[in-house]
Amino acid sequence: MIVELVSTGTELLLGQITNTNAPFLAARLNELGFSVLYQTTVGDNRERMKRVLQTALERADIVITSGGLGPTQGDITKEVTAAVLSRPMCFHADCAERIKRYFADRRLCMADNNLRQAMMPAGAKIVENNCGTAPGVIVEDNTAGKIIINLPGPPHELAAMFEASIIPYLKEHYGLQGAIVSRVLRTYGLGESALEEKIKDFILSQSNPTLALLVRNGVINIRITASAVNETAALQLITGLEDQIRPLISEYIFGIDDDTLEQAVGRLLLAKDLKIALAESCTGGLVTSRLTDVPGSSRYVTGSVVCYSNEIKVAQVGVPAAVLAAEGAVSQKTAASMAQGIKARYSPDIGLGITGIAGPGGATAGKPVGLVYIAIDGPAGTAGYQHYFNGSRTDVKHRTALAALNHLRRYLLTL
Amino acid sequence: MIVELVSTGTELLLGQITNTNAPFLAARLNELGFSVLYQTTVGDNRERMKRVLQTALERADIVITSGGLGPTQGDITKEVTAAVLSRPMCFHADCAERIKRYFADRRLCMADNNLRQAMMPAGAKIVENNCGTAPGVIVEDNTAGKIIINLPGPPHELAAMFEASIIPYLKEHYGLQGAIVSRVLRTYGLGESALEEKIKDFILSQSNPTLALLVRNGVINIRITASAVNETAALQLITGLEDQIRPLISEYIFGIDDDTLEQAVGRLLLAKDLKIALAESCTGGLVTSRLTDVPGSSRYVTGSVVCYSNEIKVAQVGVPAAVLAAEGAVSQKTAASMAQGIKARYSPDIGLGITGIAGPGGATAGKPVGLVYIAIDGPAGTAGYQHYFNGSRTDVKHRTALAALNHLRRYLLTL
Repeated sequence: MIVELVSTGTELLLGQITNTNAPFLAARLNELGFSVLYQTTVGDNRERMKRVLQTALERADIVITSGGLGPTQGDITKEVTAAVLSRPMCFHADCAERIKRYFADRRLCMADNNLRQAMMPAGAKIVENNCGTAPGVIVEDNTAGKIIINLPGPPHELAAMFEASIIPYLKEHYGLQGAIVSRVLRTYGLGESALEEKIKDFILSQSNPTLALLVRNGVINIRITASAVNETAALQLITGLEDQIRPLISEYIFGIDDDTLEQAVGRLLLAKDLKIALAESCTGGLVTSRLTDVPGSSRYVTGSVVCYSNEIKVAQVGVPAAVLAAEGAVSQKTAASMAQGIKARYSPDIGLGITGIAGPGGATAGKPVGLVYIAIDGPAGTAGYQHYFNGSRTDVKHRTALAALNHLRRYLLTL
Repeated sequence: MIVELVSTGTELLLGQITNTNAPFLAARLNELGFSVLYQTTVGDNRERMKRVLQTALERADIVITSGGLGPTQGDITKEVTAAVLSRPMCFHADCAERIKRYFADRRLCMADNNLRQAMMPAGAKIVENNCGTAPGVIVEDNTAGKIIINLPGPPHELAAMFEASIIPYLKEHYGLQGAIVSRVLRTYGLGESALEEKIKDFILSQSNPTLALLVRNGVINIRITASAVNETAALQLITGLEDQIRPLISEYIFGIDDDTLEQAVGRLLLAKDLKIALAESCTGGLVTSRLTDVPGSSRYVTGSVVCYSNEIKVAQVGVPAAVLAAEGAVSQKTAASMAQGIKARYSPDIGLGITGIAGPGGATAGKPVGLVYIAIDGPAGTAGYQHYFNGSRTDVKHRTALAALNHLRRYLLTL
């Protein structure tokens, strides 16, 4: 089945917002086995939208629109859908009731134009919106065997409606048998081409499950997707391939699906009943902020000091002034003293020290922007790491944070 | 002039990447006075791409493609462009030289398939790529008065080429006179509808300059765009409108264009020659991390303590144990003690304390998830603020950080 996604809205044409609905729908539809071959964006203009929908119906079996279901005069997607399929628009009493109730439940006053949202193409299936007032619409053109689905524009409304109602509808309508299941292996520490090289044979021979590499914010996702008669069988296929891949790259895999490095670190700290404190210089608190993005992290994050200045490094972290004088603030010894000092002062089981030059200023002879030292002090002694990172100030901070979390993860694995 | 953007690439159809080229091009083209009425995405399939380009040429004057200019067999955009305009493909010696030089300059070994990138539609104008190997292409169809422009897919290559070469080309080709200039007023602290209400008269009466509101990550941008015979005249129009709007909402405006709240705070601290230290609980270091995203922030950020636990609040920040016992860790008095304590320990001019419940756990009777206290201690005494924020744990952290930075900005303005 061929799908065309039609995104509507002037903000998209003006480039004021980025279209995140299209990639969301495309990814989910592909997982279900549909081929999304076209994506089109058009504004809230009756004639142009009509021609776009007609073109879409010629080349696709299913047309899914997003946006233009609201209460204003500019919201015309349902009307244009009705026009393209030669249906009249009818008042839908149930919808009107549901919209009135939505406002009453929230003690909000309803403007009359909200009832425009209860006008529907004749014969349409109405899809409930659990996150907003605009219902979705499914119109089947039985003669041509084609379908137009109208979804709301706000991404959280669209996603919720798609998961709760459209996927079940599509599965039933097309008698989709079986299941398509994906698992993502999350990796850090090896570049894309090096990673690809290690699992190349599996990528080349892929058919079911399929394998795809995807870089996201410094982390590389390996997506394994299998289709089978049911979920259990699909999972078996995934596990079969995963068991072959893992040994080749095990040290780089820190989690699956939506896992983050900070979650992986948190799990290890909890499992080993260890606490951590940090002394951060060039990252300015970013690593602690990421560690504390994880619910329950108060159980293992004792505290941190952001110590930009040498005075604070000495007075609040306990870095010996002699080390700073002899080695400089950005040095392996200072990082080690920071890790040891914060451990002594805050009494966790593990101390982490980070010092470096985030830029754009601050470089000296032999110490370029991007030079970073990370040290960990804990039950296995003091470990030190040196890095040269590229990019802007915030890039260097971000890359340093990822590296620090990953060093921590691997240090914890040795305990 | 009507423009259609055609994005090519299977990753887009699979939903693996979000299309950021389309909004970039759309925004810039609109500023130049072009109407981007259609955006289409199609895969690397010869037949489908050909039909998409034909449809685009029927309904637009200028078709701008992105992607598919690379060296592999899947890169077909130039060939399909040539086919649609009935041109043969020719070897372009200059291009070949430039590509060879690109590799030689970088001491890289060039694979032979890179020379595919030197095959060009006959009669095309070649556009240099200063960030990569794939040149861009402009093909003019003089009979129909239409143009196809092929740009590379990587966003930084596309943006650089568009700014350096395509804008000058379009201006010359269409004899574009005058300048279109935008300025963004960055606001925080007032919701979208309340802000709109305050400047409604100007939004309704807009023609030149135009006014648009745009919400981005909790900050509302007011974009003023003017067109005039030259940049100076356009800036005069902008300033004229800005001078009328500013008095209505001055307390909410923290900067212009790409300014961030942390930059606004940094400028004020530098101007007043003040330093700051922070004691962060629920934000886990996020506010300090944002403050230190600004180059040169080491001049005014003395340091910070992330004090999740009561022990650290007492031992390292100097919060009286009696305050914690009587009021609880999440209270106005604790926030004030944190601000005062970090000021006493780290000796900056200003201390900032933040305590709250980021969730999802941690709520108690009378203290729900999202309750946050912020306190500032400085030359104007101790100020305290209470907030209730919605959303996930990271939402609460993000909203708290914005609020804290804005309180700090307004506190500094009183000094």
